[in-house]
Amino acid sequence: MSIQIIPVDPFDYVVFGGSGDLALRKLFPALYERDLDGQLPDDARIIGASRSVLSNDDFTAKVENSLRKYIPSDRIDDTALSRFIGRLSYCAVDATSDAGWQDLHATLDGRNSVVRAFYLSVTPKLYEDICERLNRFDLITSETRVVLEKPIGTNGQTANEINNAVGRYFDETQIYRIDHYLGKETVQNLMALRFANVFFEPIWNRQYIDHVQITVAETLGLEGRTYYDGSGATRDMVQNHIMQLLCLTAMEPPAHMDADAVRDEKLKVLKALDPITSDNVAQLTVRGQYTAGSSGGQAVPGYLDELGIDQSQTETFVAMRAEVKNWRWNGVPFYLRTGKRLPKRVSEIVIQFRELPHSIFTDVTGGKITANRLVIRLQPDEGVEQYMMIKDPGPGGFRFKEIPLDMSFADAMDSRNPDAYERLLLDVIRGNQTLFMRRDEVRAAWNWIDPILEAWSEQAKKPANYSAGSWGPSASTALIERDGRSWHGEND
Amino acid sequence: MSIQIIPVDPFDYVVFGGSGDLALRKLFPALYERDLDGQLPDDARIIGASRSVLSNDDFTAKVENSLRKYIPSDRIDDTALSRFIGRLSYCAVDATSDAGWQDLHATLDGRNSVVRAFYLSVTPKLYEDICERLNRFDLITSETRVVLEKPIGTNGQTANEINNAVGRYFDETQIYRIDHYLGKETVQNLMALRFANVFFEPIWNRQYIDHVQITVAETLGLEGRTYYDGSGATRDMVQNHIMQLLCLTAMEPPAHMDADAVRDEKLKVLKALDPITSDNVAQLTVRGQYTAGSSGGQAVPGYLDELGIDQSQTETFVAMRAEVKNWRWNGVPFYLRTGKRLPKRVSEIVIQFRELPHSIFTDVTGGKITANRLVIRLQPDEGVEQYMMIKDPGPGGFRFKEIPLDMSFADAMDSRNPDAYERLLLDVIRGNQTLFMRRDEVRAAWNWIDPILEAWSEQAKKPANYSAGSWGPSASTALIERDGRSWHGEND
Repeated sequence: MSIQIIPVDPFDYVVFGGSGDLALRKLFPALYERDLDGQLPDDARIIGASRSVLSNDDFTAKVENSLRKYIPSDRIDDTALSRFIGRLSYCAVDATSDAGWQDLHATLDGRNSVVRAFYLSVTPKLYEDICERLNRFDLITSETRVVLEKPIGTNGQTANEINNAVGRYFDETQIYRIDHYLGKETVQNLMALRFANVFFEPIWNRQYIDHVQITVAETLGLEGRTYYDGSGATRDMVQNHIMQLLCLTAMEPPAHMDADAVRDEKLKVLKALDPITSDNVAQLTVRGQYTAGSSGGQAVPGYLDELGIDQSQTETFVAMRAEVKNWRWNGVPFYLRTGKRLPKRVSEIVIQFRELPHSIFTDVTGGKITANRLVIRLQPDEGVEQYMMIKDPGPGGFRFKEIPLDMSFADAMDSRNPDAYERLLLDVIRGNQTLFMRRDEVRAAWNWIDPILEAWSEQAKKPANYSAGSWGPSASTALIERDGRSWHGEND
Repeated sequence: MSIQIIPVDPFDYVVFGGSGDLALRKLFPALYERDLDGQLPDDARIIGASRSVLSNDDFTAKVENSLRKYIPSDRIDDTALSRFIGRLSYCAVDATSDAGWQDLHATLDGRNSVVRAFYLSVTPKLYEDICERLNRFDLITSETRVVLEKPIGTNGQTANEINNAVGRYFDETQIYRIDHYLGKETVQNLMALRFANVFFEPIWNRQYIDHVQITVAETLGLEGRTYYDGSGATRDMVQNHIMQLLCLTAMEPPAHMDADAVRDEKLKVLKALDPITSDNVAQLTVRGQYTAGSSGGQAVPGYLDELGIDQSQTETFVAMRAEVKNWRWNGVPFYLRTGKRLPKRVSEIVIQFRELPHSIFTDVTGGKITANRLVIRLQPDEGVEQYMMIKDPGPGGFRFKEIPLDMSFADAMDSRNPDAYERLLLDVIRGNQTLFMRRDEVRAAWNWIDPILEAWSEQAKKPANYSAGSWGPSASTALIERDGRSWHGEND
């Protein structure tokens, strides 16, 4: 399949934390892929910035190593690789002192008309220091954008502080709060399915949808990320990724596919979420923490053992029953869950449609008619499947068969599923904020999450234990089975 | 895939016209296939009956020859074949005299408790003679059914005469008027798609459907069937096959999938058809007759040349614009067309959905969004395809791609698509009339067709010429283009 490539405008991409894990594993490989496909103009430069003292050669060697490690070998092209390496340079700057900033200024000097992006792949604690110096060293032009990685705060107040700090130097139209889930092909395809076909929108509501499930399951445990303790699954996954997926699933059709129209609709969903407070938190949420168990056939230690501590209130699993209180969704539960050390790695949205209002087939078939569902899978392999009933082919009686229709077709079309960062990094250059979170969205998401965190904190109840390799505490199963439903895939 | 086979009850199948083309080419092969799959009980017999004087051995040799000719070699199994041959016997009977009827009586004697089916694969002119003798020779038991092949009459009056004649000896519950189109897998699957899923019924109406097209196109010409002249495309194809497909597409959901509930709904559609009379026949119908042209790369003669006559009013092509005047369909045209010597052999129902009420994507893409459609294909290869828009996979901008989703899956499941007669012949034994036309349906179909035939006759206009190998007269294209639409597949 030939892909139509429209090169972006010339740019300087400055990556703070440029020698860090995210940059080496995701950001540079994503930019290389776009370069390989011919989307980067000649006059595009990539500047690594971090505190480490590195020569340009050290830096480019580091990047080249990571490209060779993370890019599939059939996508490594020597010409493209050396072209990409030629775009790289390095600047040692200290976020917390003025060291190196003049060098960065010199590097960017004379290119004020070129799109300039600062990607802050550093701890949010440094955002303010960096933005203040970007301003003081006169690095912010009218063509400048700043990209913020999650987590933005640990609650509404700290998020607000960070957003205030960045907002002191950047206009909201210059700020790109990244959530890489939104860059996934399948999320885009969800928009296409919903809004470029007549098939779904008429049934995308409480009349035809029984409930929605959003699952982000990891098999990994802590893997040394001790900073996770004190954060936990709700802040790490629900407040951003899962709530964003919920918004895209539940939102009304925006009038245009532009940044503000889409984000206005997402915001409305967040504001329509029924509050969970100390009154109902015990009924509507389940927290868990994994104990020793097994993962992928290996015995693995529990969360506390990994941390080497005796106790922690941090949840490594959370399940919630959310409701969007508006005309479209009232009465339709959105079951959300995420956790570490679950049986398999999967991120998916499941739209479970209602049973048929009436089966005309009861008298003539033994075959059960299963209610339809749509599975939008983001990980491990992206795809959209519509499960529907067809007549079981063949000359026998009228029996049914459930078939999964593949609504994504990336495989069939033999095209590569690009990494989410490829799209998002270039959307920054294109000035397209549609797939980035606006400040009021972040605030609204925290407005729903804060009371939940507070209620848990008030009740001071330890998360329920679950064995590593299980689907979380039994209370999670009870949460959904109480409603006469069950988690998708739990019995596979 | 394992197919669940439920054997039918013991039976005697008496095929009048048993040495004729339909019996040898379709009926016996269909029964053999069911036997091969284990669906015929030991005590099932098949009796050929016709005027020809044939020994049992002559007859079975004839049948075996035709099985070897029409059954794919991988379905020929020597054990099954000899078992099937063992079920066969022959009885020479004359429909128009009493010769042979005592022999038939003797053959069936003592088996009054066994299901008995008389398949009248003979000219309808003989139906009354046969039925009268079946009665007089005491061959009609409470377990007896009679199967009538089309054409049932050439207009409402003659159809009524035939139905009266048969009805004198058989109760309506014993009469199976066959339309083999209804036995096709895809027609069954249309019912499953519509009524076993929530996806279609909510949009299966004038709010979401722009129009429906039903095409039955043949590449063949007259092929020596001179009796076609005086009948024509309307009687041969529209009055039965096409109107039946229209009914199944347009009908309301029946309360049950049983014979009377389904046929009640079909009847309502027929009764809701907007009449076409001399007032509007010129606007709403197009008749054509093929002249010399080419078919499959070969020069072929015109219709009159094939018949060796100078003129004929018989249409070998007809296109109509029908409307179902009820709440669901008012304003949705059903374009019907059928013809001989068209560019390809295809029978299909196309559900053309409306354009999106609003595109949110106008500003962000160059990709055109094509309105959805569902194609239900009965010939040459059966299948159901849902054409929908997905995001063109890949890292580029938000562009769309139209994909055909296969909603039949017979290929994928590696199961054989059974011939329509396999289902229908055994439905007769099962006593399931769902897929057979009830008398009032036949009457209602003629009630719509008769005024059209009369209007043509009054106007005495010769059918428009079209070259063999074209899609009919240009007036057919004009018929649909006048409405701003076009025939599906005409420009492929």
